[in-house]
Amino acid sequence: TVASAIRKALPKESLLYFGDTAHLPYGDKSPAAIKAYSTRIAEFLVARGAKAVIIACNTASAHAYQEVRDLVPEHIPVINVIEPVVNYVATLPENKTIGVIGTKATIASKAYIKGLHEINPTLIVHSLATPLLVPMIEEAYGDAEISDAIIGGYLKRRVLHGITTLILACTHYPLIEAEIGQWYERHKKQVAIVDSAWAVAEAVKSTLRDLTLESKNEALPEDHFFVSDLTLGFKRTAAKFFGDDVRLEAFKLWPEG
Amino acid sequence: TVASAIRKALPKESLLYFGDTAHLPYGDKSPAAIKAYSTRIAEFLVARGAKAVIIACNTASAHAYQEVRDLVPEHIPVINVIEPVVNYVATLPENKTIGVIGTKATIASKAYIKGLHEINPTLIVHSLATPLLVPMIEEAYGDAEISDAIIGGYLKRRVLHGITTLILACTHYPLIEAEIGQWYERHKKQVAIVDSAWAVAEAVKSTLRDLTLESKNEALPEDHFFVSDLTLGFKRTAAKFFGDDVRLEAFKLWPEG
Repeated sequence: TVASAIRKALPKESLLYFGDTAHLPYGDKSPAAIKAYSTRIAEFLVARGAKAVIIACNTASAHAYQEVRDLVPEHIPVINVIEPVVNYVATLPENKTIGVIGTKATIASKAYIKGLHEINPTLIVHSLATPLLVPMIEEAYGDAEISDAIIGGYLKRRVLHGITTLILACTHYPLIEAEIGQWYERHKKQVAIVDSAWAVAEAVKSTLRDLTLESKNEALPEDHFFVSDLTLGFKRTAAKFFGDDVRLEAFKLWPEG
Repeated sequence: TVASAIRKALPKESLLYFGDTAHLPYGDKSPAAIKAYSTRIAEFLVARGAKAVIIACNTASAHAYQEVRDLVPEHIPVINVIEPVVNYVATLPENKTIGVIGTKATIASKAYIKGLHEINPTLIVHSLATPLLVPMIEEAYGDAEISDAIIGGYLKRRVLHGITTLILACTHYPLIEAEIGQWYERHKKQVAIVDSAWAVAEAVKSTLRDLTLESKNEALPEDHFFVSDLTLGFKRTAAKFFGDDVRLEAFKLWPEG
C-alpha cells in the first residue's frame, strides 16, 4: 500500500522495492531478528543506488528505525511509517482519544503512544494488537462473513470504546479501511480512520523536495521489485497493485539463506 | 502437537526439536524455500546425533520429504506426518468420502489425494486450503466468537459437504479438534476427525521397534529445543506443552541469518 501511494504521489521517481517474503510476517518475529533483516535490506537498497530509504512496515519502523538510520550514509534520508502519522494525528483539533491497532510487535513497542505523547502529552491513547488482520487480508480476502466476524471481534473490544480517531498502524490495513468504516457506521459511531500510506507518501514528497533530491528525469520511471522468496501469494499482491506484467526478482538476503 | 504425542508414546526417548521460527509459517513459502530450510534443519539434527528424523509439519512433509530422505544417511529413518495418516485412513471400513484441510502449500501439493489413491483408488477425496486456522490458533486462542466464525466459515463450504472423515492435515489443528467436532455435532453431521499427532507417534514407535533403535536407557530422557528465532510466542507454546521450565536455545540455520 505504501509503494502504491508513493508511485501515485511521485510519478517521476523510480521505485526499488524489497519484500522480505522469506521472513514475513514480521509481526511475530523477535526484535533482534527484525533489526537484522531490516538492516540487511537497507544495505541492499543503498548498494543498488537508493537516494532515500523508506521503511514501509510498522513493525520494522518500530523496532529497527535507529539501526537502519545508523547504517545508511548520512546524506540519504530514512523515512519510517510511524512519524508522519503521529505528526498528523497529534495536531488534529478536538482529538483527545486515539485508538491504535497493529501487529503484536508494533503494539508492544509502544512507538505510537510515545510519539503522540512527545507532541501532546494530554492525548489519551488506547492500543490493541490485532494479529489476525494481516493473515485475514492475505488469505481470506473476499470472504465477507469471516472478515466481518474478525473485524467486529476486534473493534468492539472495551479498550477501543470511546475513541474518536483510529490509527491503522499496519501497512496492510488500508485494504480493509472501507470495512472498518462500515462497521463504525453500522454501530453509529463517528470515528476518523487514519492510514499510513498517504501520510508516508506525503512525507517522502516533502523530504525529497527539502533536500532537492527530486527526479528531474522526464523519461518514464523504472521500478524494480525484489523478494527474498518467490511466492505465489506475493506475485498476486504485486500484480494487484502494479499490474499483471510486474516482474519479481529473487534476491537472497544472505548467500545461503 | 507431534513432539508432545511422541513424548507421551515414547517416555524413554530424548527429543531433539527444531522450530524454524525465523521462517514460520511455512504454509505460504515457496516449495524451493521449504526444501532449503527443511534439509538444513535435517542436517543440523543428524549432526547433533539424531537416530531418527521426524518431519513434524505437513507442508514440509509434502514438499521436502524426498530431499530430506536423500540427505539423511540411509541407516537413519525419516518419518513424515502424511504417510501414517494416509495408511490409517485409506484402510478404514465404510470410508468413501474423505475431506482434507490444511495450509495452501499442503493442499496444493496434493500429497494426501495421491497417497490415499495409491492405496485405494475408489476413495473420493475433497480438499480445502484453510490458511486462517494456523494464525487463528496462534493468535486468537480463547476468543470463541472469532474462532467459531472462522471454523464454521470453512467447514460449511460446499466442497466439504457429504464427507464422512475429515483429515486435519496440519499439526496445529489438533488444538482445535474439539471445536471442529462441536461444529459437526451442532450441525447433526457424523464425521470422523483424524489428526496426525497420534498416528505419527505410533509410526515412530513401530519404526524404532522394527529397526531395534529403541532406547534402553533407564535414566530420564533429556529433551533439547532449538529455534531459529527466539520469539515470545514460541516460548509460550513450548511452555504450554512441555512446562514452564522448558529452555529454548537459539540456533541460526545459516551463519549470518
